[in-house]
Amino acid sequence: MTRITAVTAHDVRFPTSLSMDGSDAMNKDGDYSAAYVVIHTDDPAISGYGFTFTIGRGNDLCTEAARQRGLVLVGKSVEESVADLGAVYREIQSDSQLRWLGPEKGVVHLALAAVMNAMWDLAARVAGKPLWRLLADMTPEQLVDAADLKYLSDAITRDEAIAMLTELAPTREKRIAELTESGYPCYTTSAGWLGYSDEKLRRLLQEAVDQGYRHVKLKVGANVDDDIRRLGIAREVIGWDAKLMIDANQVWDVPVAIDWVGKLAQFKPLWIEEPTSPDDVLGHAAIRKAVAPIGVATGEHGMNRVLFKQFFQAEAIDYCQLDSARLGSVNEILAVYFMARKFGVPVCPHAGGVGLCELVQHLSIFDYVAVSGTLEDRVTEFVDHLHEHFVDPCIVENGAYVLPSQPGYSAEMFDESVAEYSFPDGSYWKSRG
Amino acid sequence: MTRITAVTAHDVRFPTSLSMDGSDAMNKDGDYSAAYVVIHTDDPAISGYGFTFTIGRGNDLCTEAARQRGLVLVGKSVEESVADLGAVYREIQSDSQLRWLGPEKGVVHLALAAVMNAMWDLAARVAGKPLWRLLADMTPEQLVDAADLKYLSDAITRDEAIAMLTELAPTREKRIAELTESGYPCYTTSAGWLGYSDEKLRRLLQEAVDQGYRHVKLKVGANVDDDIRRLGIAREVIGWDAKLMIDANQVWDVPVAIDWVGKLAQFKPLWIEEPTSPDDVLGHAAIRKAVAPIGVATGEHGMNRVLFKQFFQAEAIDYCQLDSARLGSVNEILAVYFMARKFGVPVCPHAGGVGLCELVQHLSIFDYVAVSGTLEDRVTEFVDHLHEHFVDPCIVENGAYVLPSQPGYSAEMFDESVAEYSFPDGSYWKSRG
Repeated sequence: MTRITAVTAHDVRFPTSLSMDGSDAMNKDGDYSAAYVVIHTDDPAISGYGFTFTIGRGNDLCTEAARQRGLVLVGKSVEESVADLGAVYREIQSDSQLRWLGPEKGVVHLALAAVMNAMWDLAARVAGKPLWRLLADMTPEQLVDAADLKYLSDAITRDEAIAMLTELAPTREKRIAELTESGYPCYTTSAGWLGYSDEKLRRLLQEAVDQGYRHVKLKVGANVDDDIRRLGIAREVIGWDAKLMIDANQVWDVPVAIDWVGKLAQFKPLWIEEPTSPDDVLGHAAIRKAVAPIGVATGEHGMNRVLFKQFFQAEAIDYCQLDSARLGSVNEILAVYFMARKFGVPVCPHAGGVGLCELVQHLSIFDYVAVSGTLEDRVTEFVDHLHEHFVDPCIVENGAYVLPSQPGYSAEMFDESVAEYSFPDGSYWKSRG
Repeated sequence: MTRITAVTAHDVRFPTSLSMDGSDAMNKDGDYSAAYVVIHTDDPAISGYGFTFTIGRGNDLCTEAARQRGLVLVGKSVEESVADLGAVYREIQSDSQLRWLGPEKGVVHLALAAVMNAMWDLAARVAGKPLWRLLADMTPEQLVDAADLKYLSDAITRDEAIAMLTELAPTREKRIAELTESGYPCYTTSAGWLGYSDEKLRRLLQEAVDQGYRHVKLKVGANVDDDIRRLGIAREVIGWDAKLMIDANQVWDVPVAIDWVGKLAQFKPLWIEEPTSPDDVLGHAAIRKAVAPIGVATGEHGMNRVLFKQFFQAEAIDYCQLDSARLGSVNEILAVYFMARKFGVPVCPHAGGVGLCELVQHLSIFDYVAVSGTLEDRVTEFVDHLHEHFVDPCIVENGAYVLPSQPGYSAEMFDESVAEYSFPDGSYWKSRG
């Protein structure tokens, strides 16, 4: 038997604010960061890696919270733990004192995500499979047992979820073969950061077109005249057949969102992303009614499954952009996928940041293979930053994620990257003073 | 001119789990704690005190987050800061890197509450007034400028809020005189913790009746037979004219809540509190429809004003139980009070914990004086624990809070208490090892 001997947490920060990568109307100077967790065992060949994503200050809070969340794992059997990750998740989550600080949101929930992401990575490594394959090899009952369905029974029951998964189970391999051939479609946000000049925008958009992307996304919301000019440039470069998405990063009140999006409607965006507070279910529903046929997308700040349940129940969104490091890892994400399928909402996960692309490729593949069974209206975000720090980085070809083949959740970072960018004592930050 | 010289934050924990004080169906062993903030100035006679409340583990995270939130205050002029607390609030809140960790929820928002509670305490001390009086002496425009109305304009506008406040402004002094006479009505939860024996429950209920309380609250939700037996005892002791409230502390899914409350309806509870996830606006609306005429109450875990906006818009609750240390201090609480008035929902603030009674008495008094103008259906929680650690503890007589008279927000703790219960190095925790 293998035992977990320690769970370490590391505050890793990259100085992305220097190049304005990631700049938008709400977040002008993020330093993309990870609260990075390593699960150590008494077998040096077996470890698990995971993280949550932040944009700088406060990453220390998530790191310390992840350390505390991980304490309960020490001493556990690896074999027993990976055989029932639902039980592990519930045990970590059941700390009622830490629960008070959310509940199920904010720093303690981000920390839960970091630790459970590492547990799922560990499980996939032990199984010798990439995470998407580990999930695709689980039975409907096993998947539903791993999912967190608490507070959801008015939207989906255990039996309904099992029935949905069972329906698609016989044809999973067919869809795996398809994706092995073509990859999972993605779009790029790399061109559209708000802090980039018009020239850089134009150049990056042309590069995206040349690389085969059929969807691009631009940040909006700081100044409406700038938005109109930038979206004009985008349509010039990508034409009118490619899809253009816009993202306001929560800067508007509901009436302002409706008014502002109206002024940008001439550019025929596919969706407006994060038009207002990420917590505002009814506000999104009102915006959706007003701006149709432009779709409404949100979810990267969607704090937990209860919020997503209400987005679905209120018919508030056209696209569900769940986040792999904000929700409570695969356990909670499974529940959101089940509900999305039932309510007929496509899931187009948020990615970018540090390592989020590495994670979400597994989720999107699994969704197609086992939950939704369709690629219609689905496209997963891709942002081309910071992949060089990952041992098994995602690969994008012709606007599609290539299926990962190495065991795990693709979450492991190079030791050298962790050492260099650890805050504040890594060599990079020390040299900056 | 006086300058802020430092903002210190202290992790203070009381061992309440030893006596099962505070035990409920979700939280079985809380150690009531405060992330306690002191704003120091270059005038030794001028300081500000504030806190947020937690139940133990993770209080260190809130303490560290409060320390980080407070850094921006150092060097500021006290006079300029207290003259525009809306600006101070927005400056603290505008840290986009820390915002990412919520946004506006969880540890970083609890920390905002702690720091801004201390700023409001400081402002009231500088003015030489108890906080309720400081607020009651502000003009409608000043109050609305201090309030955080971001994301709320689809529910209430600045002009609407000013108009509501202006309507009641001429009669504020009359209501102050009334409350000076009679106090602000409260109810007690001290009797009803789930971990107490039937004998202790009966004795404490009798004491509550003898002390003049007309409302008592019991915890429910762990076992329905126990609930029926305990509520039977309660009605035996308090009779059928007094009001009985029940509190499930979020343990149920929506269908379970409806079923379980149905079984307790025979005891004619005034409200069911926290029947399900505190984030579930639509769930509360469904429960409210199903259990009427029993009211639905929630809010102590209400993370921010956007959630409360939706509770009001969806007609999901009969009683709004905002929390003085979870919302972003008076700035955000004002906005919730304005919306509650507009939507006709009585605010019955959550209290208990560490020092929450000390804070909410000011808020309830202000609400009656300047916002709602009525006491109908209003009653504020009172729990008789831990007041001995406060320099200006609340006083309850004949089931009502006596109007505080000392300058400030009643948030200051004795230095000895802070020293003894600081975690882990205070004398109490050191002696426990």
